[in-house]
Amino acid sequence: MTASPIPLAELNACSKADFVAALANIFEYSPWIAEKAADARPFVGIAQLFEAMQAAVERAPPELRLALIKAHPDLADKTQRVAGLTLESNAEQNSAGLDRLSDAEYTAFQRVNNAYRARFGFPYIVCVRRHTKDSILRDFEKRLPNDAAAETATSIAEICRIAALRLDQAVRADDRLPVHGRLSTHVLDTHSGRPAAGIPLELVELSALGESRVIVRMTTNHDGRTDQPLIGGRPVPIGNYELRFTVAGYFAERNVALSDPPFLDVIPLRFAVAEPEAHLHVPLLVTPWSYATYRGS
Amino acid sequence: MTASPIPLAELNACSKADFVAALANIFEYSPWIAEKAADARPFVGIAQLFEAMQAAVERAPPELRLALIKAHPDLADKTQRVAGLTLESNAEQNSAGLDRLSDAEYTAFQRVNNAYRARFGFPYIVCVRRHTKDSILRDFEKRLPNDAAAETATSIAEICRIAALRLDQAVRADDRLPVHGRLSTHVLDTHSGRPAAGIPLELVELSALGESRVIVRMTTNHDGRTDQPLIGGRPVPIGNYELRFTVAGYFAERNVALSDPPFLDVIPLRFAVAEPEAHLHVPLLVTPWSYATYRGS
Amino acid sequence: MTASPIPLAELNACSKADFVAALANIFEYSPWIAEKAADARPFVGIAQLFEAMQAAVERAPPELRLALIKAHPDLADKTQRVAGLTLESNAEQNSAGLDRLSDAEYTAFQRVNNAYRARFGFPYIVCVRRHTKDSILRDFEKRLPNDAAAETATSIAEICRIAALRLDQAVRADDRLPVHGRLSTHVLDTHSGRPAAGIPLELVELSALGESRVIVRMTTNHDGRTDQPLIGGRPVPIGNYELRFTVAGYFAERNVALSDPPFLDVIPLRFAVAEPEAHLHVPLLVTPWSYATYRGS
Amino acid sequence: MTASPIPLAELNACSKADFVAALANIFEYSPWIAEKAADARPFVGIAQLFEAMQAAVERAPPELRLALIKAHPDLADKTQRVAGLTLESNAEQNSAGLDRLSDAEYTAFQRVNNAYRARFGFPYIVCVRRHTKDSILRDFEKRLPNDAAAETATSIAEICRIAALRLDQAVRADDRLPVHGRLSTHVLDTHSGRPAAGIPLELVELSALGESRVIVRMTTNHDGRTDQPLIGGRPVPIGNYELRFTVAGYFAERNVALSDPPFLDVIPLRFAVAEPEAHLHVPLLVTPWSYATYRGS
Repeated sequence: MTASPIPLAELNACSKADFVAALANIFEYSPWIAEKAADARPFVGIAQLFEAMQAAVERAPPELRLALIKAHPDLADKTQRVAGLTLESNAEQNSAGLDRLSDAEYTAFQRVNNAYRARFGFPYIVCVRRHTKDSILRDFEKRLPNDAAAETATSIAEICRIAALRLDQAVRADDRLPVHGRLSTHVLDTHSGRPAAGIPLELVELSALGESRVIVRMTTNHDGRTDQPLIGGRPVPIGNYELRFTVAGYFAERNVALSDPPFLDVIPLRFAVAEPEAHLHVPLLVTPWSYATYRGS
Repeated sequence: MTASPIPLAELNACSKADFVAALANIFEYSPWIAEKAADARPFVGIAQLFEAMQAAVERAPPELRLALIKAHPDLADKTQRVAGLTLESNAEQNSAGLDRLSDAEYTAFQRVNNAYRARFGFPYIVCVRRHTKDSILRDFEKRLPNDAAAETATSIAEICRIAALRLDQAVRADDRLPVHGRLSTHVLDTHSGRPAAGIPLELVELSALGESRVIVRMTTNHDGRTDQPLIGGRPVPIGNYELRFTVAGYFAERNVALSDPPFLDVIPLRFAVAEPEAHLHVPLLVTPWSYATYRGS
Repeated sequence: MTASPIPLAELNACSKADFVAALANIFEYSPWIAEKAADARPFVGIAQLFEAMQAAVERAPPELRLALIKAHPDLADKTQRVAGLTLESNAEQNSAGLDRLSDAEYTAFQRVNNAYRARFGFPYIVCVRRHTKDSILRDFEKRLPNDAAAETATSIAEICRIAALRLDQAVRADDRLPVHGRLSTHVLDTHSGRPAAGIPLELVELSALGESRVIVRMTTNHDGRTDQPLIGGRPVPIGNYELRFTVAGYFAERNVALSDPPFLDVIPLRFAVAEPEAHLHVPLLVTPWSYATYRGS
Repeated sequence: MTASPIPLAELNACSKADFVAALANIFEYSPWIAEKAADARPFVGIAQLFEAMQAAVERAPPELRLALIKAHPDLADKTQRVAGLTLESNAEQNSAGLDRLSDAEYTAFQRVNNAYRARFGFPYIVCVRRHTKDSILRDFEKRLPNDAAAETATSIAEICRIAALRLDQAVRADDRLPVHGRLSTHVLDTHSGRPAAGIPLELVELSALGESRVIVRMTTNHDGRTDQPLIGGRPVPIGNYELRFTVAGYFAERNVALSDPPFLDVIPLRFAVAEPEAHLHVPLLVTPWSYATYRGS
């Protein structure tokens, strides 16, 4: 993940051995998938490359698909962490905060791993970059009652999502895989009819079991937006969030008469993300005495 | 406070001794105020009775006014609590939660008491029924830099507010003292254009130092309102609040298509109360994808 | 209609002849209905009286019901107007503006009358107090394709609505028939967080064929409401309306900085009324740069 | 105006005579301004070219500036129209609708022309592309009481605005003069939390004296926006507008339960434009039972 991405043209032109070496861990410990895909070269784009890899998985015999599933680590497993996760797998688990679990969370994840493995004989697999800790546990509750066939299919689907994200980071092409979402905001001061500049805000990931976690702190620019999206260039993890704006100082600086204490100061907008690859816009329309928000796009 | 209120007519008709006995602690340990007021009988209403008592305070010589101030207990003082607060004073301090302070809060209150007493030679007096713990500490920060004359005046004003609230509870008349505020809400479902019935909500008093505290839990009725005001029949304490509505279940029951997890579920409205005697209305206009609030009346 | 209402007690106590005389025209030119109802005296309330009259209609043989239908005048018929409408019928038709039709409207109504009478052999009957001119014509388009049985039933239902409104005006009792609706508004200035007082507004009934008509002009009071409902004490006629608020002067008087010309001045809210007996609340939340409205209650 | 724009490089390179010929009517019948500017060649951009022309005007002696003012036609003058407006001037007056005045409007404009000319001895000049008929008359009322010095300055300023717009159309360069504004909208369906596609809308220019005029009819695209701005690539004329959305069909097609007639169908947003060169965004947030708008950007 730390290496700079390889141009697709290079992958199209290199030896099969180099191709396989470069993409060996796109699917966890499963270079055979890259091997199959190599035969379909050249690719006009990264989407076509990914399709070829996905096709290899889909056409593989059941034993091989099961082996692919079993090649994956348990979630948040401290033992495996010390031993040997792929670099990719380690970075992914950290992205969801699985490297800094509270004791209660660690216990919950252990329970999930064990219950799932006991029932299905393979690890609980989920594309963690698309999730928060809460939604991983929530999905588990939904998936545990399923039968083995359904969970095999779901595991393969999650593995493909993991692979798509790895491929997106490993290869550079003219096209992009649709693996990134975006979370943005906008503050409009409807008291003076202009964008609200200089509003401090923070995005917090809420957690049912552990501590809420500040994802980012920013300040609105002259257009009432943030210079960078709140979350961008990656999936927006499924989960519960609170976006907190601090507005009283903004109005006070503009000599707007406020009550003491001001009726509104920290304004929390609490919402859930359900589609990690979508663009979710959560704006704030605000006066010192009113506000509104909505799911925009 | 536990006794039922005395009719004003009875106070107008009884002996002076009985009158003074009945109103001895309207002003803390200061029956002389009731004595002065007794001479102005009969009163046409409770407002006139209160004016007479207030006038007695205002006309009293400085030493007596200072004695009145010094008759008051320190805030949240554990020693005095064991010894001898008036019943009235004890109930008032409990109303603001001063009987269940966290260690950090207790330390903060001790600091306030001591710093204030060291500077002015009399206790820090505030009408606690009009305040939350946070706003008591916040007001202290504002008042400490004042000079003695200003603080003497402020203390007397606070004492009169305390007295008005005690009188309101002690005496029944055709008129009422303007000592009560009201906090209300209303949930309008703008998705279906009707009041939102059956929405669970809770009102939380926020605290900078200690734990937030749930003041009340209610459910909206068929008119989208609560059967009782969130706070009513008393001052609405100055401070910071969060009103939390839980809306996803309401929409799900009506078969409205929601995302998973639902974009909106718990909706927190965070606001401050600045005028304890006013009617503050904080409504929610809500769809599964948007909401708005404003300071109404 | 101009006479003051008769107390129900009086109707309960008087001779049958007086009872029938008093209620002879509750159903147009059909005293036999009052006669039937007279036998059910005494009535505990006006609702029970109305039920007795309605039951008489429902139990009447088909010929009599048809005669009742045929006893009604054509809508907006200039010939009948000169000759002999009941006073009640005349006042009702005027309420919907049928006494001041434009030429295009008059032609449209003539067409309705003739087409309907040609098809069914009886006049087109609708409770005009519950309608605007537009909705009378709109309902006609819906009803004309019906069969005779359906239109007989609908005509009787409309006749009962007419009768209920006449009875409501003719008789005074402790209970009221549910024949009145209400249209109200409220202007909240979310720029300063208080009710907007002194806002001029007008309610206009829109017309597809003729001229729009100002129903009422009012100014908001200190509470941001109107002293009287926009429409009250009668059905709110089904139809299209525009409520127009003039807000720029309000903000200018409060020294709020506005653009030139002001971004918002006359704010039209266009909406339809569908339930004449309901309470419809159409508020305005407004700053100089934004506004919102919703169907409230 | 109909000729295609000349590249700035060409104007930098050509003979002085050709330069002057090309820009002779940028200032009405006043080629001397282009002549002065020619000496400052080459220009790095159109902004610098315009500055040079403006500087020539500013440095000209008073008599010449007055002659420039007098070179302009009366507004909406039918006689001059037949005779000899420049093509540019004719097109500009048509843009504001001055070629299709109602009788009342024509009379009003004649009054303006005559009153102004009688007072100042030169024609009433305004950059009509930045105005509606209403705002031309409104500005006249403001300007007529001014003294001659003020009106000379204002006339020159308006002439420079006219020239900037002509230059923008006549010359092509890498930079653009800041003479264009934009009016845009966006419809968000907050009932289903997505952009409202397929909403018909029309933009109407309101007129105090004459007929309102539909500027454009459009339908929202899949993103809830219009493919083209409502007004773009030119100044947004100062004046009063109504943007009308028709929404009931949109909700009905999506099987949303509506009242009959629907509470909301045609939604008019009435607003004024004050800054022709700004971007004004007037969105609609709408459910079948509520809507909101605001001045966005």
